[in-house]
Amino acid sequence: MSNESSTVAVLGGGQLGRMLGLAGVAQGLSFRFLDPSPDAPAAAVGALVTGALDSVVGLDEVARGAGVVTYEWEGVPADSARHLARTHRVAPGIRALEVSQDRAAEKTLFRSLDIPTARFVTVDTLGELASAIPEYGLPAVLKTRRGGYDGKGQYVLRTAADVEPAWAQLGGVPLILESFVPFRRELSIVAVRAADGTTACWPVVENEHRDGILRVTRAPAPGCTPALQAAAESHAIAVLDALEFVGVGCVELFETDDALLANELAPRVHNSGHWTIEGAQTSQFENHLRAILGRPLGSTAPIGVAAMVNCLGSMPDPAAVLAIEGAHLHDYGKAARPGRKVGHVTVTAADESALAPRLAALLIVIDD
Amino acid sequence: MSNESSTVAVLGGGQLGRMLGLAGVAQGLSFRFLDPSPDAPAAAVGALVTGALDSVVGLDEVARGAGVVTYEWEGVPADSARHLARTHRVAPGIRALEVSQDRAAEKTLFRSLDIPTARFVTVDTLGELASAIPEYGLPAVLKTRRGGYDGKGQYVLRTAADVEPAWAQLGGVPLILESFVPFRRELSIVAVRAADGTTACWPVVENEHRDGILRVTRAPAPGCTPALQAAAESHAIAVLDALEFVGVGCVELFETDDALLANELAPRVHNSGHWTIEGAQTSQFENHLRAILGRPLGSTAPIGVAAMVNCLGSMPDPAAVLAIEGAHLHDYGKAARPGRKVGHVTVTAADESALAPRLAALLIVIDD
Repeated sequence: MSNESSTVAVLGGGQLGRMLGLAGVAQGLSFRFLDPSPDAPAAAVGALVTGALDSVVGLDEVARGAGVVTYEWEGVPADSARHLARTHRVAPGIRALEVSQDRAAEKTLFRSLDIPTARFVTVDTLGELASAIPEYGLPAVLKTRRGGYDGKGQYVLRTAADVEPAWAQLGGVPLILESFVPFRRELSIVAVRAADGTTACWPVVENEHRDGILRVTRAPAPGCTPALQAAAESHAIAVLDALEFVGVGCVELFETDDALLANELAPRVHNSGHWTIEGAQTSQFENHLRAILGRPLGSTAPIGVAAMVNCLGSMPDPAAVLAIEGAHLHDYGKAARPGRKVGHVTVTAADESALAPRLAALLIVIDD
Repeated sequence: MSNESSTVAVLGGGQLGRMLGLAGVAQGLSFRFLDPSPDAPAAAVGALVTGALDSVVGLDEVARGAGVVTYEWEGVPADSARHLARTHRVAPGIRALEVSQDRAAEKTLFRSLDIPTARFVTVDTLGELASAIPEYGLPAVLKTRRGGYDGKGQYVLRTAADVEPAWAQLGGVPLILESFVPFRRELSIVAVRAADGTTACWPVVENEHRDGILRVTRAPAPGCTPALQAAAESHAIAVLDALEFVGVGCVELFETDDALLANELAPRVHNSGHWTIEGAQTSQFENHLRAILGRPLGSTAPIGVAAMVNCLGSMPDPAAVLAIEGAHLHDYGKAARPGRKVGHVTVTAADESALAPRLAALLIVIDD
């Protein structure tokens, strides 16, 4: 069934685009991806337009014949989305992109919605940084306002002696200084908002990072109470509503002894939602497509419990992974490279006690 | 991860190939499909070699660089599989193909394994047909031994007056006459056999046909007892073992008041197993690939209950389908044509009482 509205153009052609494509081809959709790399993983499930994400020629080419344009990376220039919005529907939307590209705008939005965040101040000079320290205290985290991901573009200041090296590493671009949050754990919530404003959230998950990169997601987050779930949903929905968001987004959270703080918004399907492919009634990828196509959303209820482990650098032995009960292997078709996200494994079980030994076995195989 | 063994060559590029590809690309595999049609649905998830399934050039081209060759249609000429077996591993295997292409060979195999079947006799002339009637009784079903599918190539003889018209319609090719089985319902069991001989079966399902084409599959079959499941599993595993089968196959069954008869073997993933994508721990597509790649099998346990409804002729309105709780739409990207299988919808629920209203709503939408 090839008609205009069944073609989806995606800005970015990484693994998120690939998994969107896998969910969408099943539903009869066709995909066109714009990516600078001729080896983009999404090429396996659609037409690849090779070009920069700010190339007008590339943008026009990827959107040719598409019923809707979406993006799989929040680094897509807002001007690119703005250019395409003249001729196409762009979802989740331009404002979501702009806000999520600037840590200060993001936290300002959270605050305006009464969502707790770390205390923060924007910093543009070494003088501003030095004078902010007494007020915000130490430890604190200095971050670039734009372009940071997977722990890059951050510097933890522990003592006054860290101020100058932090500035030497990050200074010269707009920065944000954030009070250090003494969090117990990092959580996130993936939510979807339909074109008609309907929203749904998957269970809150717990994320464990290694060297700033997501390593393990446990879904639902162990010990997640209805109150915690409700608080996280309330934050996520407030953000999506405020942005008139259409599609899937993720809010990263810090859980402290007495609060739930919002840290970041990812205006796209998210690594901490990959478990939904096997672990939820409807995956984040399927629901993102349902939303941007104006279709009804599917249930976000979990099926038992799940854990997702990223494969960083290289893929583990498939036979060893698949020998683990409940394990499902995802390989993005990327060349091995230290620290690179090349795949993930989701392991499911009926409950946490059945999951624990499977996850333990999986971590041994993946670390090998 | 592009290396020789991660490429799968598939003979046939229809919706079964497409769904194999969707399951396999997720696992990092690459696909090459051989199909006579340039519009083959599987082209969305792999390289399409356009050519006849008995073209040596096409066969050699599709298998280029592949670690394993499989087929998604039992009509693939056995000589094609034999040709490729000289240079490649071919799974499920040539004997499975040969046996399933001949209704007499199929039933002879079932009988040799003590699996009950309808009484049958091969018939090559009108005289043989006429003289078989007194022994086999009426009603009886005359079928072509080869090439029948979706109810084609069959003629039900109810009285002696049907003999000549049946012969006029089907005669001239090898035929088989089968006693009519007064079945209560049609069932099937999808099973998988790994390279090391390990086997697993999904739950027995109930199939409802319309005009000889599968219309609805209910999984598990309502009222399926452990004894029925065990009998079906025993039949399916005996067949796969006898054929040294590697991959997924389906045995179609008739349930009568006091017996479970085998009717046909499909040596491939099967329409009555599509529900496993959402309704089982591991789908038939994922397990077929695991098997033919020599990887451990995944659990075939169901997740709640499911029903699958084929979309025949044209696709229903996606929004109407997806408004039904638990519904997942599959669109094969095929042009509409009366009676053609263009997609399917699977609807899942926790139990049969929750499923019933969802399935009822779905049937109304699809029949519209």
